[in-house]
Formats: sequence, structure tokens, C-alpha cells
Amino acid sequence: MLTQQRFEALWRSLHAIGRDPISGGYLRSSWTPADQAMREWFTEEATDRDLTVETDGNGNLWAWWGDPTAGDAVLTGSHLDSVPHGGAYDGPLGIVSAFLAIDLLRDRGCAPRRPVGVVAFAEEEGSRFGLACLGSRLLTGALDPARARGLVDARGIPLAQAVVEAGLDPEALGADPARLARVGAFVELHIEQGRALGDHPVGVASAIWPHGRWRLEFAGEGNHAGTTLMADRRDPMLTFAYTVLAANKEARLAGAHATVGRASVEPNATNAIPARVHAWLDARAADQSTLDELVEAVRRRAHDRAERDGTAVTLTPESVTPEVRFDATLRDRLASLLAAPVIPTGAGHDAGVLAAAGVPTAMLFVRNPTGVSHSPAEHATDADCATGVEALARVLQDLAC
Amino acid sequence: MLTQQRFEALWRSLHAIGRDPISGGYLRSSWTPADQAMREWFTEEATDRDLTVETDGNGNLWAWWGDPTAGDAVLTGSHLDSVPHGGAYDGPLGIVSAFLAIDLLRDRGCAPRRPVGVVAFAEEEGSRFGLACLGSRLLTGALDPARARGLVDARGIPLAQAVVEAGLDPEALGADPARLARVGAFVELHIEQGRALGDHPVGVASAIWPHGRWRLEFAGEGNHAGTTLMADRRDPMLTFAYTVLAANKEARLAGAHATVGRASVEPNATNAIPARVHAWLDARAADQSTLDELVEAVRRRAHDRAERDGTAVTLTPESVTPEVRFDATLRDRLASLLAAPVIPTGAGHDAGVLAAAGVPTAMLFVRNPTGVSHSPAEHATDADCATGVEALARVLQDLAC
Repeated sequence: MLTQQRFEALWRSLHAIGRDPISGGYLRSSWTPADQAMREWFTEEATDRDLTVETDGNGNLWAWWGDPTAGDAVLTGSHLDSVPHGGAYDGPLGIVSAFLAIDLLRDRGCAPRRPVGVVAFAEEEGSRFGLACLGSRLLTGALDPARARGLVDARGIPLAQAVVEAGLDPEALGADPARLARVGAFVELHIEQGRALGDHPVGVASAIWPHGRWRLEFAGEGNHAGTTLMADRRDPMLTFAYTVLAANKEARLAGAHATVGRASVEPNATNAIPARVHAWLDARAADQSTLDELVEAVRRRAHDRAERDGTAVTLTPESVTPEVRFDATLRDRLASLLAAPVIPTGAGHDAGVLAAAGVPTAMLFVRNPTGVSHSPAEHATDADCATGVEALARVLQDLAC
Repeated sequence: MLTQQRFEALWRSLHAIGRDPISGGYLRSSWTPADQAMREWFTEEATDRDLTVETDGNGNLWAWWGDPTAGDAVLTGSHLDSVPHGGAYDGPLGIVSAFLAIDLLRDRGCAPRRPVGVVAFAEEEGSRFGLACLGSRLLTGALDPARARGLVDARGIPLAQAVVEAGLDPEALGADPARLARVGAFVELHIEQGRALGDHPVGVASAIWPHGRWRLEFAGEGNHAGTTLMADRRDPMLTFAYTVLAANKEARLAGAHATVGRASVEPNATNAIPARVHAWLDARAADQSTLDELVEAVRRRAHDRAERDGTAVTLTPESVTPEVRFDATLRDRLASLLAAPVIPTGAGHDAGVLAAAGVPTAMLFVRNPTGVSHSPAEHATDADCATGVEALARVLQDLAC
């Protein structure tokens, strides 16, 4: 019960930061005042625990118990940013749990034989600049810093400018192999985002489905909604709408996931046939060939419909991540230590990026009773969150004490 | 040829105002700096012609040749605002033609026996505050000023604030029967927006189709795009997409027009199933019962699909305008004077609002070779525009000299 009380107290301290009072969801977009407040919270909590805080060249925050230059560190943590109007748990739960797990280790008199770190990766959701896991991808070299610098947010602000305002040097973005080499193991705790855990409060991840996002552009002819004959129209909204339904149907047939959750219309006037619709396809599947076939089917059906509508469509990969299997030794050690089930996930995570870069990596999931995530309704019980903290503490103790 | 040269010169003077250099379209949203520049241009052109300029309480601009208080005035004009990335002709052609027609009347030594006025109605497109023909509707009392004051633009700026910044008193918005009573006839010249004129450079309007805009709201459950099983989803984007296609199909079957040209998605993140999609249906038909049946069919099909998707949909009328038949005497007089064809239109106009308020009203259309409108590609030839000026001058001469 003590852990749960501690969890509730620390959890409450984040409640108001970046919360939209109308939706009840969070607007913790990267390098905004809300994100800055989250970072200040992180620094304060770390400092209160006598951890050494540093920000790396990619905007990731690190808090160290022990000397990280000693190497072979045990790292835990997650991210602080949210999707627009997202839930409270996706990301911050892993950070709060990390601090509380360190508290438990200290209660138990652990004197770590390896450095223990807490990390908060930047722009994990990719909801501001369109590329998920930006901070961890830059760190591991999976993302070219020149490409990152060229990204522009929805208000036209380039990433290079946004990070300057946050005190970073855009020229310092990029791979940091020395820092990465110090990490001997990474364990990310995260809220589960489906309903796969059933009776178990905590699970261990086996793999991340191959997944990606594709940019769809539908081009037609802008025209007057009142006067243009139906037969004379080249309306890209029709091709877009058909593609949304086709992606859904193909994903169902394939046992995969496809979502069109983001779209924008030009000129977006009630009385104008659009000239252009931009949209993004998010697709995921249990294996690469299913994913490839799904995206190809969507492309084919979109093109067929575009021909009928007199429009043009392009489908361009924006970021595609192959399957990540987590470190088998670590996974089995955690599952046996915690007597927890092993489940795959359709969600990308910084843990997947570190695993792909060769860091022995594992994930712990905390049960999500409704499976709702990326929504204000995202929820885990305080009791399950406390169980998650205890589980993470056992894992860190096992690895570091 | 002189009229064409004069047209080209005056037309050129508007070219740069509010033009987007990338799309080549116009961003002349009401009560913005671009709109203000258009208004200054109007005032300058009117003053150069010794016309008396006034702004009424609803932001409509008036320029008078003669004393308007004498009554029974002959009014011409149109509007200066554009849809986002709209064409150059929709609106401004009627104003430019009005000034040039007055020049021609003076060349011909006309001493008007009735006051002649040029009007520029505010927010005709409704592209900023969502209600078309705002200035003329307020003037005639067709729109409650309290409702107008409550309108909010896409950036959250209330109309009451936008008009204050433009020097208007929001409390002075509303019906102005005294001003309206001075108008004995209104003739609006406008670019045609279909391809109905064929071999004729100029036509006369018979009627405006009944038309309106309906707000569609699709509500589902925001959730994670990667982890939520397809079977667990309540995705409003699917219901929206289906409704777009259903509206198109029903309109084709009915020989009517239906368009979904405006939509916004919440939270609009690539990796989130949307919680909500807002959209607008623009629908028009040759008669009221066809229009009613069309909208009802869209509503029914949207609801059916929402039931299958586990979502909710509402369809709410935002502004619905019954058929407007223009004054028969005036229409026949113009058609015979100009030997011009008489055609209906699917587009709403301030002329329709004045006609509905009992003002004897007519419209002249200038040929649009491609039928493209509300788009940067909207175009009429200089020769046709000059023919339009000559036609308008003949009409004004006939009515006022």
C-alpha cells in the first residue's frame, strides 16, 4: 500500500501539466511550454533523489544514480510528450515508475554495482514533427540529423528553430555512440495499449510488430461546389474517402491494423470542391510480408479509384520500422522473475529503437482495462500502477544490485 | 477595344492584393489586412470618380453617384472577399465592372435621373465565419445580428472582435430597412461558375437553386492506432468517409449537387484513431423537394453506417436558402436589351439575398470557358469581361439615364 500511496502522490504532481480542460486530454507537444514544464518536473524529481541530470544533444533527458561513464549501465524510463489530447499514462507512467522504483531500491538498501539511469526520450509520439521516436532515433543514428533539421511542424516552425528555443544546438543533433555504449540494458515500463493482459497486472514484451506511416496525397481540381456539374468534377475528397474505407477493409481481411487518423483538406471551404487532400496511413501487422501486402493493396485500390475520380494519388513511406524482437535472455529473465505473461505489441516505442541498435532491451507493460490509449480515456488503476513499480524495482534490483 | 484596355488596367491593379504566390489563389478573407487593402482600393477608385463612399453598420461599402437619399436608386456591385485560395473573378469582377460601367455612362453624357450606387457586400463567401452572404443578410434582416456576433472563425476569433478591429461597432450590426428602401433595383454582375453560357459572352440569371450547408459531426472513440483491435474500434473517420461517398452518389442519382469540401479531425494524429470528425455538406438542387430528399438520404445513410461503426453522427442545418427567382420584369428587360440567354445558377449570391428581401434584382453572368471557380484556375477572357462591362453599362443606362 505504501508504493500505491507514493504512486498516487507523484502521479498527481503531473495532473495539471498541459491538460486541456475541455477534452481532459494532454497537449504535451515536444519543445512547447507544457513539454518544458514536464522537463522541469523531471529535473526536480531527479535532483530531489540526488541523481545527476543531463540533457544530451538530441534533447533526451538523463538522470543518473552512480557514474554513467563507468559503463554497463542499467537504464529505465520512457517519454514525457503526448499525442494531441492524449492520455496521462502513455510515456509518463514509465518515468514516474522509474523514480519510484529507485526509491524502493534505496529503501531496500541497494548499493548498485552498475550505474542506474532514468531517461526521458524526446518527441516519442512524433505528433509535432511527424516522425515517431525522434530522440531515440537520433541518439542511435537511425535518423539522419539533416533530415530531422528539415522537419517542419503544422504551424510551419522548423525543428531546427524549435530546438534552439529549447536551448539545443541543432548542429549537435545526431548519433551519440559513446553515450549509447554506456548502456548495458534498457527496460522501458509502459501502459499496455490493447487488452492483451487479461488477469495479469503486468506483462513482458516479446516483440513490436513491423509498422509504419505512409503519406497519402490526393490531388484533384478545386472548383465551385454549387455550380460544377457532378460529371465535371475531379474531387480528391472522394478518392480519399474511398481509400479510408479500403484501408480498413484490407486490414480486417489481413488480421492487421490500418488507420487514417490525420487528414487535411485544401482549401477546406464549405462551398469549394477541394483541390487536395493530405492524409496519413498508419499500418501494422504481425509480420513484414502481411504489412507489405496490406500497404500494396491500399495503394492499388486508391489508384483504381483515383482513375475513376479523375484525380491523382501518391502513397509515400514516411517512416517504416521492421519487426523488433526484444532480447530473448532479458525477456525470459523478466518473465520468470515476475511470473508475467509475454505478449507482442502493435505500438512503436523507444525501447524498439534501442533494441534495433543492439542494446539488450526489454519492456514491461501495465494492464489497461479498456485497451483505450492515445485518448483522454486512457487509464490504468493505481493498484496496477503500484504493481508495475514493484515489478520494475525487482527487475532493476535483479540487474543492478 | 477601349473598354477592354480600361478593363485590363483596372483589373491589374487588384492582381497582387492577397495573392498567395504558391497557389496563385487569393486569401482575401473578410476583415483581414488583404480585405482592408481591397476596401482601400474600392474607396480610392470611388473617390477618383467623385463618388461618395460610406460604410454601413454591417461593413458593406457603398459608393454613390448622386444623392442616395433621393431613393429609387439603381445599385450594382458584388463582393471583394474570396474563398481561401480562390480565383480573382468571383466578386471583384462585379465591382471592377461597376466602376467601368459608370465611366462609360459618363463618356456617353448620361445625367442619371436616379441615384446610381456601387456596393461591395461583406463576407459573401462565408469562408471566415461559416455563413455565406453575411453582409447582405444582416442588411436585409435575414440574419439575426446576435447570431452573427456569436460566430467564431477557425482561429477562435469571434466576429464581434474581428469587426471591431475593422472599425465597426458590433452593436450596430443588423437590419437597415431605411438604407434598403432607397434601392429601387439591384443588378449584380458575376463570373459564371459553370459552363452554361456556351457561345454567349454574357447571360442573365433566372433563379438561384435552393441550397444550403449542413454541419456533420461524427463522434467515436479516440484510441491507439497500433494496438487497438480492428473489432474494438469505434472510428468516426470510417463513418465520415462513407458519408462523403454516399452524398456524392445520392446527388448524382438526384441530378443535384453535393460536396464535402471542409473537414477537420480530432485529435488529427497519425497514430491515433480519431475521436471526432467535423465536416460540412454543401447541397443544392433545382427544386426544394429534390434538395430535401437528397439531404434526408445522406442523413439516413450516415446513420445506418454509424450504427455499424459504433459511432454517432449528427447533421445540422447551418444555413439553408430556398429557391430565389429573380424579378421577372427586370430579367426579361435585360435579356431582351442584351439579346442574352437566361440561365439558372447553383451558386448563392448577395443578389439572391436582396431579391428574397423584395428588392427588384437581376444578375448578369460573364462566360467562364472552363467552368472552374473557387480555384486559382478560375478565368474569364479580357474580351468577355469587356463585353460584360458594356452590357452592364447598357443596363444601367436603360434603368437610370
